[in-house]
Amino acid sequence: MKLIRHGNLGQEKIGVQIEAKHYDLSAFGEDYNEQFFESNGIERLANYISENKNQLKEIPADSRIGAPIARPSKIVCIGLNYLDHANETGAAIPKEPIIFFKSTTSVVGPFDDIMLPKDSEKTDWEVEFGVVIGKTARYVEEADALAHVAGYVLINDVSEREFQLERGGTWDKGKGCDTFAPMGPYLVTTDEMSDISDVGLWLSVNGEMYQNGSTKNLIFSVPQLIAYISKFMTLLPGDVISTGTPAGVGLGFKPPIYLKAGDVVELGADGLGVSRQNVVEFSL
Amino acid sequence: MKLIRHGNLGQEKIGVQIEAKHYDLSAFGEDYNEQFFESNGIERLANYISENKNQLKEIPADSRIGAPIARPSKIVCIGLNYLDHANETGAAIPKEPIIFFKSTTSVVGPFDDIMLPKDSEKTDWEVEFGVVIGKTARYVEEADALAHVAGYVLINDVSEREFQLERGGTWDKGKGCDTFAPMGPYLVTTDEMSDISDVGLWLSVNGEMYQNGSTKNLIFSVPQLIAYISKFMTLLPGDVISTGTPAGVGLGFKPPIYLKAGDVVELGADGLGVSRQNVVEFSL
Repeated sequence: MKLIRHGNLGQEKIGVQIEAKHYDLSAFGEDYNEQFFESNGIERLANYISENKNQLKEIPADSRIGAPIARPSKIVCIGLNYLDHANETGAAIPKEPIIFFKSTTSVVGPFDDIMLPKDSEKTDWEVEFGVVIGKTARYVEEADALAHVAGYVLINDVSEREFQLERGGTWDKGKGCDTFAPMGPYLVTTDEMSDISDVGLWLSVNGEMYQNGSTKNLIFSVPQLIAYISKFMTLLPGDVISTGTPAGVGLGFKPPIYLKAGDVVELGADGLGVSRQNVVEFSL
Repeated sequence: MKLIRHGNLGQEKIGVQIEAKHYDLSAFGEDYNEQFFESNGIERLANYISENKNQLKEIPADSRIGAPIARPSKIVCIGLNYLDHANETGAAIPKEPIIFFKSTTSVVGPFDDIMLPKDSEKTDWEVEFGVVIGKTARYVEEADALAHVAGYVLINDVSEREFQLERGGTWDKGKGCDTFAPMGPYLVTTDEMSDISDVGLWLSVNGEMYQNGSTKNLIFSVPQLIAYISKFMTLLPGDVISTGTPAGVGLGFKPPIYLKAGDVVELGADGLGVSRQNVVEFSL
């Protein structure tokens, strides 16, 4: 299934995408959250859709699409997980996965605006392959790791490089600004995406292609990441792992290229759809 | 008020401490979470208590006390925020606050066990003055910052130093293990704690005093921290800021002293009560 959420930010209703059409599932009475995933929600929802297939209501084409999951308990991000990206930033190849967090207040829908934070001059893009946890993961073995996954999602790990790298402390400071985690358009469940070993990922700004990679170049694979992270913290159903970005971020250019108001970012991944964000100045 | 939560981990009910006695407030029908704080819950609860003062049921003295708030959207921690602690770790004095996160799955009650993670040899303690956000904070001015606070709470920012400092990447890896955030015994609301400029904090292990500090030695004050963090991410009602630890952590000794199974950690802060954790090997 391709799970979607629709409606105003913070008030999204659930739905499903079937053959490019969006159907409302709010009558199912749940959100795509920790409780849903841990109570076998995907299987229950598949049965519900199957039983109600002829009564599903299509969502108007102009409805806002939100992030395809409710606010997770955490977004765990992996740094420098593609060789080419580590090289472009001048960083050493990590011996173990680099872990940092995005504040979950940064989550927005796939077609929402990216707001430049106040006083930001170095807002950058990062297309990423996102993993949504389906079952609690704690000291998980690599061989069992994928059984803990609900599905996959496209993420733009928007990053303010000055905040991240030049303001002291950890990277977390530059990763969690409002609108810095556009997610979606949909969560694709694992039954529709059994092979994640060579998923193409791309990102363009104003129509010019900047990133063009594949998960085949991940330094640490998805099973390795789940097993590794679960030694340091418990992953809950609905939690997100953003697995790192391939080469081609703005920071890697000489001189660097950063986002400015009016820019249009488009990104996509094989099987995960396409998202598009307009870059705007901060406002509320 | 002194807000408490009682009952089994993950199923806590709310309550209040009045003159060293614990009363159940589950009939109020809410938890101490984002929704509670943002909907003026403290004032509504005070009225409820006042109206029902003679019918409140006391909680048995042997009831488990949980963390005094529901799982927050995030726990933002400040590193090296006391001069004496920065010195003992050999780190430079930060020019700006150092921000990192604790995974919210690390939260436990004030008298729960601290479980040593598997393969941990360097689990350490950190008594901290915790701030619970009461109103959404986004680009808040320092002068207005305290109006965004619901109350204060005692926190042990338990830290695995090898995970934090020797495994690559950010500090987040050593801060979010299960049981690494004992909180409580209670949240004290701001009306009962108007002056936070000189709050004494202490921590002992097996009866020997290791930390003995005061918030008067914070490098960045609570209003400064709220204003600063809110430039990088939105703080939600119920979120926690753990403001840093004074000198006396195990890492600072030569040779360092780390926790082992059987140890007993006790900590306290003026006006925030005392907590106590037994250190045990990891188990589920």
